[in-house]
Amino acid sequence: MPQAAPVPALAPLDGDTITARLKELAAFTEVPGELTRLTLTPAHKRAAAQVSYWMREAGLTQVHMDATGSIVGRYPADRANAKTLLIGSHIDTVRNAGIYDGNLGVLTAIAAVEALKTSGIRLPFAIEVAAFADEEGVRFLSTLTSSKAMAGLFDPRSLEDVDAQGISRIEALRSFGAPVDRVADCRRDPQDMLGYVEVHIEQGPVLEAAGAPLGIVTGIAGASRGHVRVRGEAGHSGTLPMAMRHDALAAAAEMILAVEARGRANGDDLVATVGTLVIAGSAVNVVPGEVQFSLDVRTLNDDLRHAALADIRATVAEIAARRGVRASVDIGHEVPAAPCHGPLKERMAEVVESLGLPALRLPSGAGHDAMVFRGIMPMAMLFVRSQNGSHNPREYAAPADIGLAAEALYAFLLKTAQEV
Amino acid sequence: MPQAAPVPALAPLDGDTITARLKELAAFTEVPGELTRLTLTPAHKRAAAQVSYWMREAGLTQVHMDATGSIVGRYPADRANAKTLLIGSHIDTVRNAGIYDGNLGVLTAIAAVEALKTSGIRLPFAIEVAAFADEEGVRFLSTLTSSKAMAGLFDPRSLEDVDAQGISRIEALRSFGAPVDRVADCRRDPQDMLGYVEVHIEQGPVLEAAGAPLGIVTGIAGASRGHVRVRGEAGHSGTLPMAMRHDALAAAAEMILAVEARGRANGDDLVATVGTLVIAGSAVNVVPGEVQFSLDVRTLNDDLRHAALADIRATVAEIAARRGVRASVDIGHEVPAAPCHGPLKERMAEVVESLGLPALRLPSGAGHDAMVFRGIMPMAMLFVRSQNGSHNPREYAAPADIGLAAEALYAFLLKTAQEV
Repeated sequence: MPQAAPVPALAPLDGDTITARLKELAAFTEVPGELTRLTLTPAHKRAAAQVSYWMREAGLTQVHMDATGSIVGRYPADRANAKTLLIGSHIDTVRNAGIYDGNLGVLTAIAAVEALKTSGIRLPFAIEVAAFADEEGVRFLSTLTSSKAMAGLFDPRSLEDVDAQGISRIEALRSFGAPVDRVADCRRDPQDMLGYVEVHIEQGPVLEAAGAPLGIVTGIAGASRGHVRVRGEAGHSGTLPMAMRHDALAAAAEMILAVEARGRANGDDLVATVGTLVIAGSAVNVVPGEVQFSLDVRTLNDDLRHAALADIRATVAEIAARRGVRASVDIGHEVPAAPCHGPLKERMAEVVESLGLPALRLPSGAGHDAMVFRGIMPMAMLFVRSQNGSHNPREYAAPADIGLAAEALYAFLLKTAQEV
Repeated sequence: MPQAAPVPALAPLDGDTITARLKELAAFTEVPGELTRLTLTPAHKRAAAQVSYWMREAGLTQVHMDATGSIVGRYPADRANAKTLLIGSHIDTVRNAGIYDGNLGVLTAIAAVEALKTSGIRLPFAIEVAAFADEEGVRFLSTLTSSKAMAGLFDPRSLEDVDAQGISRIEALRSFGAPVDRVADCRRDPQDMLGYVEVHIEQGPVLEAAGAPLGIVTGIAGASRGHVRVRGEAGHSGTLPMAMRHDALAAAAEMILAVEARGRANGDDLVATVGTLVIAGSAVNVVPGEVQFSLDVRTLNDDLRHAALADIRATVAEIAARRGVRASVDIGHEVPAAPCHGPLKERMAEVVESLGLPALRLPSGAGHDAMVFRGIMPMAMLFVRSQNGSHNPREYAAPADIGLAAEALYAFLLKTAQEV
């Protein structure tokens, strides 16, 4: 058995090496000059091919695309009938994204396996690395279908979701080259699994404010997502007196401020966001008749989330009634909070401390593939300090911090080997 | 000389006949099932061909497309060296429009000329009927280019305007088949002109509330149009604490409510509208980093309009400073109020009264092609009662009211013949 600490600084774990790969991967984009790689697009397919190549180079075997478009490879155990540890993250992005979100977790996992291969180490458990296809939820309303399929929670109705161009997920999967008929093969039997581990940038300012390169995730906030539709009455912007208007956009503006105020009412315990807004048939000289905007509410406390949603529904109804417009709130996506697994979490804390770093514990306000394994198999996450949040081109993780994350993941694997 | 009153009810002036043509014209649309006919689109071109046909049938000669895409025809005078009366309106529409806005004025003008032809009447002045190409200002930021060209006010820079697809106006004009090199030919020498007259639906609720089928326009409100750009900071909707956000959409929402409040502060004397709003790179799970929305302020009182804009600029700056976002207000289109010409307006009032109707006088809150002739040649407008405002598919003018408008226009021509 190898020693767990101190961890030797192996070449594949070097932060600069991983950062160079992140930049290479960022070249696979739908929009030149920025990183936009929505799920199941041609840019995503090219990125998946690159990741497959790196997986094989790292010593992963059976590298393949699964039914949901994920790329999965396996590093065999040193013995038969061993259990498997799944390490993953996603390679789809939002529009005009940063280069770290998702991709970092995939590349650190590949690096940790490559370090095992370089050292000639086999462990008493197999490792699977997954580059999930569908985490951001930008293209289709449903999301996390890749990790859900592995958890055995894939909903076949998500195949019928359509994007803004009217393309269904099943059509997109077929164009992508995914063997869509084999969703059942994606499921991993929890009996065979040690658990799921994911490395990810924090996407928030907590680690940076604390001066900590790495963070131990305590759990993932629950989330409710949906949209509000406001129907007023369109009219001519020059001739409809102000007093006779039923302006859907002005009503929506008041509702957006109410969502913001409700988010603020619980300090740092809850966030509430309106991210999209579309006016039907909009023009400079038309009083808006119909508006739809999105709603995203997150907190670690499921009761608080439900209470906030009830408050938002009531305020939306009050504003609509007062302004003589109709409004409906439709929550299409609801995920409960997912606490991380105690023993895995503490093992991760120990290896971070073994690197001489503080093991700062913090919740995740963002959703992650990790959360779908709630109640299915043990799950843990390691956060990497990131500047400028995430989901924007200025998100940044320092190569030194990335190297520490890769070393921590590698040490986690070695420590797990001692404990299975 | 023919007798001016009572006016015989000629077949071409029949409201049902004109309404049937309005419905035929509404079939020329970019979007099946609704009327969307933006300027210089293929749907517009097909509509222009239909209008050309009706013009020729009505006895108009020299029917042609001018450099701006307008269709123009001429009904010659009974003598040489006669002056010309221009009657016009537009056949472009907003998105998901009603069938009356603009089109009604063109078809009543054609009907009045057809009634002259049917009666074998030539007048001591020529009539030109114009179906203007560019009034709604939906596709390009500049607008009214067709009537401006006739007034000698065409701005060549408007040829470089681009639409949302990046197509410039000059490219669109060439595809449309307009002889773009001959803009100078569009100008009418004011010395040769009796003036400009336009029939149009009211687009507001005043005539309907008063029970008056027709209205005499006193003037056209001045208008300022432009946009407000708000730049905050994008971030992840789950991890960016509410207190650390610089949400461009929430800031814009507050500004939109401020625009509405400023509009309401002057009762019925001013309207202020936000009709469009676009979030850059929007997604459900991204705190909006940049938002642009339109601004449209109108009133008959130019001083009041400038004061309201100054108030809006100040409030936008205050909101931006308080929220830590940047905001800029850019007014790209500014048109002063245009009073109608006294003698033409009173002649129109007389013919309306000669039909046994009240000559209700009212301002126009909407812009019209008529306003570009301010200070160039005498101008008058006749409003037709309309239900449900305008710029929406429910706008409605009763065939009986349309028939009265056509009769009034015909009587106006005969009365003008007595006075030149």
